[in-house]
Amino acid sequence: MGSPDEITQRVNFTTPRSFTTILKSDLKETFLPDDPFRQFKQENSRLGRIKKGVQYFVPVFEWLPRYNLRMFRYDVLSGITIASLAIPQGIGYAKLVNLPPIIGLYCSFVPPLIYAVFGSSKVVAIGNVAAVSLLLADIIEKAAPHNADLTLYVSLIYTATLFTGIFQALLGFFRLGILVDFLSHSTIIGFMSGTATIISLQQLKGFLGLKHFTTNTDVISVLKAVFTRSSEWHWQSALLGAIFFSFLIITKEIKKRKPKLYWVSAISPILVVIVGCLFAYFTHSEKHGIAIVGELGKGINPLSINKLNFDSEYLPYTLKAGIIAGILALAEGIAIGRSFALMTNDQIDGNKEMIAFGVTNIIGSLTSCYLTTGPFSKSAVNYNAGCKTAMSNVVMSLCLLFVLLFLAPIFKYTPLVALSAIIVAAMLGLIDYEEAYHLYKVDKFDFCICMAAFLGVAFVSMDIGLMLSVGLSVVRALLYVARPSITNNGKIPNTSMYRCMQQYPTATRIPGILILQLGSPVYFANSCYVRDRILRWIDDGQQVSNEGNDIEHVILDMGGVTSIDISGIEMLQEVRKNIERKGMKVAIANPRLEVSEKMILSKFVEDIGKDSVFLSVQDAVETCRFTLNELKEKKNSTNNLESVLRSYI
Amino acid sequence: MGSPDEITQRVNFTTPRSFTTILKSDLKETFLPDDPFRQFKQENSRLGRIKKGVQYFVPVFEWLPRYNLRMFRYDVLSGITIASLAIPQGIGYAKLVNLPPIIGLYCSFVPPLIYAVFGSSKVVAIGNVAAVSLLLADIIEKAAPHNADLTLYVSLIYTATLFTGIFQALLGFFRLGILVDFLSHSTIIGFMSGTATIISLQQLKGFLGLKHFTTNTDVISVLKAVFTRSSEWHWQSALLGAIFFSFLIITKEIKKRKPKLYWVSAISPILVVIVGCLFAYFTHSEKHGIAIVGELGKGINPLSINKLNFDSEYLPYTLKAGIIAGILALAEGIAIGRSFALMTNDQIDGNKEMIAFGVTNIIGSLTSCYLTTGPFSKSAVNYNAGCKTAMSNVVMSLCLLFVLLFLAPIFKYTPLVALSAIIVAAMLGLIDYEEAYHLYKVDKFDFCICMAAFLGVAFVSMDIGLMLSVGLSVVRALLYVARPSITNNGKIPNTSMYRCMQQYPTATRIPGILILQLGSPVYFANSCYVRDRILRWIDDGQQVSNEGNDIEHVILDMGGVTSIDISGIEMLQEVRKNIERKGMKVAIANPRLEVSEKMILSKFVEDIGKDSVFLSVQDAVETCRFTLNELKEKKNSTNNLESVLRSYI
Repeated sequence: MGSPDEITQRVNFTTPRSFTTILKSDLKETFLPDDPFRQFKQENSRLGRIKKGVQYFVPVFEWLPRYNLRMFRYDVLSGITIASLAIPQGIGYAKLVNLPPIIGLYCSFVPPLIYAVFGSSKVVAIGNVAAVSLLLADIIEKAAPHNADLTLYVSLIYTATLFTGIFQALLGFFRLGILVDFLSHSTIIGFMSGTATIISLQQLKGFLGLKHFTTNTDVISVLKAVFTRSSEWHWQSALLGAIFFSFLIITKEIKKRKPKLYWVSAISPILVVIVGCLFAYFTHSEKHGIAIVGELGKGINPLSINKLNFDSEYLPYTLKAGIIAGILALAEGIAIGRSFALMTNDQIDGNKEMIAFGVTNIIGSLTSCYLTTGPFSKSAVNYNAGCKTAMSNVVMSLCLLFVLLFLAPIFKYTPLVALSAIIVAAMLGLIDYEEAYHLYKVDKFDFCICMAAFLGVAFVSMDIGLMLSVGLSVVRALLYVARPSITNNGKIPNTSMYRCMQQYPTATRIPGILILQLGSPVYFANSCYVRDRILRWIDDGQQVSNEGNDIEHVILDMGGVTSIDISGIEMLQEVRKNIERKGMKVAIANPRLEVSEKMILSKFVEDIGKDSVFLSVQDAVETCRFTLNELKEKKNSTNNLESVLRSYI
Repeated sequence: MGSPDEITQRVNFTTPRSFTTILKSDLKETFLPDDPFRQFKQENSRLGRIKKGVQYFVPVFEWLPRYNLRMFRYDVLSGITIASLAIPQGIGYAKLVNLPPIIGLYCSFVPPLIYAVFGSSKVVAIGNVAAVSLLLADIIEKAAPHNADLTLYVSLIYTATLFTGIFQALLGFFRLGILVDFLSHSTIIGFMSGTATIISLQQLKGFLGLKHFTTNTDVISVLKAVFTRSSEWHWQSALLGAIFFSFLIITKEIKKRKPKLYWVSAISPILVVIVGCLFAYFTHSEKHGIAIVGELGKGINPLSINKLNFDSEYLPYTLKAGIIAGILALAEGIAIGRSFALMTNDQIDGNKEMIAFGVTNIIGSLTSCYLTTGPFSKSAVNYNAGCKTAMSNVVMSLCLLFVLLFLAPIFKYTPLVALSAIIVAAMLGLIDYEEAYHLYKVDKFDFCICMAAFLGVAFVSMDIGLMLSVGLSVVRALLYVARPSITNNGKIPNTSMYRCMQQYPTATRIPGILILQLGSPVYFANSCYVRDRILRWIDDGQQVSNEGNDIEHVILDMGGVTSIDISGIEMLQEVRKNIERKGMKVAIANPRLEVSEKMILSKFVEDIGKDSVFLSVQDAVETCRFTLNELKEKKNSTNNLESVLRSYI
């Protein structure tokens, strides 16, 4: 590529795509990034397409026809295992949200059936979860404390669940899965750890057999409540709790050492409950300060449609609880569905999952269930137990049906301290200090986001902690693009590559030419910065080359600029004018499709000249060098002419 | 570059920069993008540095020592010209904010003096502005209507001005100029046009000589107020207004055709005022329904420090008004300073300008002035009149001093309709339909942002319109990076370049290798999308090559990825595992400094292997091809062996 004449390939400046084409492509990438209709395009017959459509929206039709006995064997086993987990967790988490314990059992009967029909994950096991339970209680208690009017409280929880369901289904329907993306990994780690901390601390009530307790969730209120009531402590309860807790921890340790024995850890909670029930029944433990769950009732879920409360007085609370808890539940459910899908090599459509969770919660709220999602612990057990399809949810549901119809009264003797031990044992696994340390090492800002969620949840309240952390994440997201790095590139010896001179110290400046590499979208929020930074590089470059040759050409490598808006284009115009006023020339290298389209439409290409836009930095450098040499030669020849003339005089 | 052995240059994986180095560099780019301390580094002596420091914070010391008589001649001329504009605009805009007209004159006396000392722009002329005036009135009227208690109203305006000043100075001090960047060009165009529309419509009150009027600013309320009071219309007033307005428009037209005659348009407002005063004085126009300004008083600004009102009842209003108006005033003042600086080839430090505006407003609020900034019209006239330094502001200030001391009582006869004509004539230039059309053509989303501001301001209220538009801009900014384009690249014939196959139809796929080019920062908000999109490209690629050879290698070109966070790195890990599970291999090409640092820290490089990270796509392709060929040869040789063996049997 000696002279610019040899550059045969130029930037493609044929007519830009039409507005509708761009809009269609943008909308598709924004709302249908996973291209869900691809499968329909492959079907030729109309019937085939209808079949695919039904299968798409109701996945049960996809896997049921291919279902066989071998799969069923696995699903029965895993279904029974998760049912044994669902009973203690259901009761325990229902206590966490201050609901009658039987509602926790209801939650593992109807919702899994619905999810089995609409859900697309094979592994997710439906049930109530700790963090969301506490969040619901946190918000609704402010509107109507459960100990003042339990009926009202329960009706508000159902209403919030209905709102969650509608909200989730709408999000999915309008394909706004993008919202869940804004709960970053760091936020979730911090939030989960914070929640696990306060939930564990709250269990001190159960461990110590306290009757009165604070409704606040923050660490300080809880510790105060515990230590100002030391006269109410019951050592019997604490001892029993310690025994149960040790047992659970030991089984977890066994699972860790021998992953094949996962079932020991999986059935240990139900064992604790059974042993606890027997112990309480035979020792009349209530008299010794060991409180029990108390009457549970029996029978399947009653309808709760008549209990919904849309009173304008409570609407702000139920709506807020529904939406925040809904996003959080989605984040957990979808994240888990996705991670297991990666392990089983399936594709999970987040938006479709949202609809599934939404429908599950809507129907749940009408049948005396509160908010459910795909909890991590249950789903992991389900996966380990070898479940093959969503049939394991159906099996769990049938087990719960049996329990509700016949066995529920037995669980009345469950000691509260047993539930506390089960909850704390489950929560400890969620405090992910190793991951937090990893964050600290790799990315300090991510660590701050994580700690904001953790400390906010632990010391203020759950919603504040969550919002603080999300707010920080968004600020960071904006900063990321408000200050995109612009590097000064040099030529790497013996190649035709131009790379950042800070990153590659061997790269060398090309005399007379400044090569700047832009990145990120260029738009209103960073256009001023980009301009200032470019002009600063030019100033720096001029100072460096003050003794030798001045900068004559500025090449802007736009290969990393994914999009540009009107402010960005105007910034480029300004920069161009400014550089030209300084007597230098600008060249653009490798604009992407979106950028070159905007450059054509805004007439920037006309102003700068098509000859100044190159396909690669190398081409631009060659051409600039050629011009530089020509200039030098001209100067030389003028000098020669002068000397010749002088010699004649 | 035949075989991979020839690749001598590899990605630089020496130890990453330390955390403090990165933090320092990030903080510097975020808060000091213009590197204001550069000039100090060049000074060697301590005295020189102190001198530079004082000059940096108080720019008057920079230009005053070099000031000469020739400059002064120009500055006197431009100072008198802008003073002639300051009188009618001052009175008119003060009426807009429902303040006594003399306060408008005060605003052109003290604030320009302060700005002349602290401001770094040579061209900006200080004064009150229409949009901000109306915004202040809009918010403060809700707290305390001016016709109920004018003293309270005035004191709240002063207080809001003080808050504006403090807010602006703090923004500048903490170098948060970045906030102003979020007012995009499109927002400003829409907001200005909307404001100009409602201000113009409000002048119907003056044109028609109405006594009673609505305090609402939206188009519908104003039109209703005008047409339900048709019995109060005064044709005399309307006629006089039409004459004045035509005169102003004609002088503007003259300026447009012959830019040298700019002064005709510049002095036309004061001419209109003088003629109006004479007319009103001699015809006793008040009796004919042509209202006049009325008693103005005389004398210089009284102190207003005792009038500040920090009553908690009004604090939310004054704070809100101060902050919103402050950002808006900054956006106008800084944008104007910057655009003129580009024309005169100066550098304007936005953060320093903020401090200057802030100090100006703080002192202004203590000396009976309300919010001032650098209005566009005045500054443009100043520039056209050939001002050389901020001395022109001092000259204007002295002119105003003279007016306040001696001439103010004369202006009592100014007909209100003359002021209305001046305001409307000034506003018409702000309705920038051409730019809006340009936006429509180049970028439809920018157009929507612009229209949101315009329609919001015109039909709802100024603050709602502004926030709506800024909100949309931020959503767009997030979407920009939430859905970064990922292109499928092919080789451009006869070169070693790999470019988007959609953009360059001649680019061709390389058999067995998929080259994907990423862009934008990769982080939590887009990591899920990026993963899905990469996996979709792989699926698509496999379908295309179903008949021929399968994809064996996936090359991710990371050259455009300016930064990555922990979610992004984890996404890459997931993608890597997923691809490897499908039996393909991943290679990374050209990671930038920030990205390769994170890759090292998170051990991603160890997992993928240093041999799979290349400096360029070309290197990666060569290596992949080499492996492919080796595989093929091996297969061939096995086939050969088999056939040889078979022939033996």
